[in-house]
Amino acid sequence: MITIDQYIETNKERFLNELFELIRIPSISSQSEHKEDMYRCARKWTELMLAAGVDRAEVYETEGHPVAYGEKIIDPSYKTVLIYGHMDVMPVDPLNLWHTDPFEPVIKDGKIWARGADDDKGQSFMHAKAFEYLLKTGQLKCNVKFMIEGEEEIGSPSLPKFCQEHKEMLKADIILVSDTGMISPEIPSITTGLRGLSYWQVEVTGPNADLHSGLFGGAVANPINTLAKMIADVLDENNHITIPGFYDDVLEVSAEERAKMAQAPFSQEEYNKSLGIRKEWGENGYTTNERTGIRPTFDICGIWGGYTGEGAKTVLPSKAYAKISCRLVPNQKHEKIGKLFQDYFTSIAPEYVNVKVDYLHGGPSYVCPITLDAYKAAEKAYNEVYGRMPVPVRSGGSIPIISAFEEILGIKSILMGFGLGSDAIHSPNENYPLEQFFNGIRTIPLFYKYFTEE
Amino acid sequence: MITIDQYIETNKERFLNELFELIRIPSISSQSEHKEDMYRCARKWTELMLAAGVDRAEVYETEGHPVAYGEKIIDPSYKTVLIYGHMDVMPVDPLNLWHTDPFEPVIKDGKIWARGADDDKGQSFMHAKAFEYLLKTGQLKCNVKFMIEGEEEIGSPSLPKFCQEHKEMLKADIILVSDTGMISPEIPSITTGLRGLSYWQVEVTGPNADLHSGLFGGAVANPINTLAKMIADVLDENNHITIPGFYDDVLEVSAEERAKMAQAPFSQEEYNKSLGIRKEWGENGYTTNERTGIRPTFDICGIWGGYTGEGAKTVLPSKAYAKISCRLVPNQKHEKIGKLFQDYFTSIAPEYVNVKVDYLHGGPSYVCPITLDAYKAAEKAYNEVYGRMPVPVRSGGSIPIISAFEEILGIKSILMGFGLGSDAIHSPNENYPLEQFFNGIRTIPLFYKYFTEE
Repeated sequence: MITIDQYIETNKERFLNELFELIRIPSISSQSEHKEDMYRCARKWTELMLAAGVDRAEVYETEGHPVAYGEKIIDPSYKTVLIYGHMDVMPVDPLNLWHTDPFEPVIKDGKIWARGADDDKGQSFMHAKAFEYLLKTGQLKCNVKFMIEGEEEIGSPSLPKFCQEHKEMLKADIILVSDTGMISPEIPSITTGLRGLSYWQVEVTGPNADLHSGLFGGAVANPINTLAKMIADVLDENNHITIPGFYDDVLEVSAEERAKMAQAPFSQEEYNKSLGIRKEWGENGYTTNERTGIRPTFDICGIWGGYTGEGAKTVLPSKAYAKISCRLVPNQKHEKIGKLFQDYFTSIAPEYVNVKVDYLHGGPSYVCPITLDAYKAAEKAYNEVYGRMPVPVRSGGSIPIISAFEEILGIKSILMGFGLGSDAIHSPNENYPLEQFFNGIRTIPLFYKYFTEE
Repeated sequence: MITIDQYIETNKERFLNELFELIRIPSISSQSEHKEDMYRCARKWTELMLAAGVDRAEVYETEGHPVAYGEKIIDPSYKTVLIYGHMDVMPVDPLNLWHTDPFEPVIKDGKIWARGADDDKGQSFMHAKAFEYLLKTGQLKCNVKFMIEGEEEIGSPSLPKFCQEHKEMLKADIILVSDTGMISPEIPSITTGLRGLSYWQVEVTGPNADLHSGLFGGAVANPINTLAKMIADVLDENNHITIPGFYDDVLEVSAEERAKMAQAPFSQEEYNKSLGIRKEWGENGYTTNERTGIRPTFDICGIWGGYTGEGAKTVLPSKAYAKISCRLVPNQKHEKIGKLFQDYFTSIAPEYVNVKVDYLHGGPSYVCPITLDAYKAAEKAYNEVYGRMPVPVRSGGSIPIISAFEEILGIKSILMGFGLGSDAIHSPNENYPLEQFFNGIRTIPLFYKYFTEE
């Protein structure tokens, strides 16, 4: 029987060409001008699923962007694996920082360079090719379903309803997701925890028009100064979030578990060096890995107001805006936090401005027990390809839909990620090492093997 | 002899058409794509000066945008009036807030609506027409020089050198400037003080690339949060500026003078209502007019960083920027303040970010003694047209070049402004009432009359 290595060797170029067809579609879910691209991308996915061997594949409408769904039912009595991935990508600005066209993939230095190369076109496509190999070589011993959505980067607003409406179709024993990373190519890891997310846009209005900063400056509140002060006041001198009730539901992690976490290989010096910073930052009393793994955050993702063009325009602007997000840890409810911040930020607004807070989206956190059979099958699969048992880690990122799957479909997810810290997902020059791409295609069939073993 | 009223009545339409030709040239000095428009505007000014009757008019090169200069020498032994104005205008964004094209003047509700309608095309052009009337009717009893520059809105960087190089040509007894406002059409006023200005751009850099706010958030300083905190720290709880040494040179105004200032008609309620604010703001211990007239300020004129597009992008940005300005009061030196802020802002930068502060421009403040003969001539002129002696007021605005004139040319300036608070200069929908435009043309010849009387 042809081995996976032989199969990859023979089909390498085709695999990449197929992936590149996906990447070339600028499927930016957050920008309305790309609405039609989302459909193009969904249709492309169904073509690729059919080519890989599913029985049927269809583009499903949702209230937002479409879902590409495909399935191969070998025998209804067999176990079923549901693959979840997303076809949408993050915006690409600032464009001038990209070294190559974000939507024209280039292979250089052993990596694929493009928006979506890792997140999540590259990673989700590994599943299509692993499936193809198992099917073509007669090794597939379970049913496989693919659900590739188009709204992950905007918080999957339509997918919960889609799941509710297609519960029967989506029935499965486990959900398999490759949308996370591992510590390094030498130290494989599986994400066992994800942070939740709340995201707002705030608008601060001072005077009803932009004013001359000379004639009015000093006597009329400047909405940018005011917004800056309000933002600054949300973190105290220990970088602790001051929103009343914010930490109420945070599960404090035991000293024992923190000690275990501290054993993960980590160099603060190298971390700082790779980011070009002289010093790390964060909540007092926690290490860097704890700050991203077990603690919530308050970050301004964007800010704008007044004159931002060339040169010097003296203006006292009418409005200032910010996009604000909090990462949440297990047990924090995003809807509750969404409301807490809204109330708090409105309450600290001084009388001389008007503040509007819109809750743009949110999602819950997730924990995967390492005692799960499927988790153990994934562990063995990584061990065989990477020669080392993967470390279970709590990620700082969020995949809000993962908790929704558990709630709506009653199915746990295994986060078999193959991304690396250097992949620059969500940044200019996103990339994905070919070695990780092909190792993913090597690892996934082993998961099926161990998962379907009696 | 034909009166000014008759002359205006006969030539009204032509006056406006000529002004509109000036306004239609988008002479935005701060935007490099308008470089050629500055030359077009300067040539247009020389044409209009020649048409009004000067002996010669020329476009003079400077290190930056050109100067349009023209003169009518009746008799070298006569007094000389130097008219100063500026042909450049402020940027027009946000364009969507304009009700009409900013560079296609429209007359509606008795006002001219366009960028530059008041500041300063409308106001400076009144001088050309007043001069034309005096000359054509044989009433001109002094020499007149016009110096119309193209860099006022960016702080007149090239004009001091131009003045130095043309001291002889610019010799005059008084400089006449219409680039300020008056209290209301019922209460004329003359600006006797101007605030100085310092303007910086700051750049705060955190990590060397935009990061995923989930994977890194909480463990790496966010430059927007950091910038917000730094900005907030520059004003204390009394809205007093915390930059060490900032107030050292501020001349405190006596209780007596403050009492006199307080007699100027002013309704805080109407002020707030016209600006759409519930409450005024400012340095504790000062009234609104004191806050703009005799106290320095700290305003953020623009801020930007991270994701500012549609929807929700979760990013921990690499950089955040702000444009920052201080209005300064008499005796504060802008170069010194420029340096003080630069040093202070750099000194309060936390170790986990890099801060760069660029001093974009600055200008000194100005005071005009109300005992000056020329001031008295202006007073009488206003009194005759408006039926009331003008109130001397200290403006919050800045015309940095006015102090430079005094320093380099040794000539005082009279700020005969006819703008109104509702003219929205520097804002969308700038406008200038026709009545003020024509009253200006009525008032200026009277200034000449009283100024040249023995």
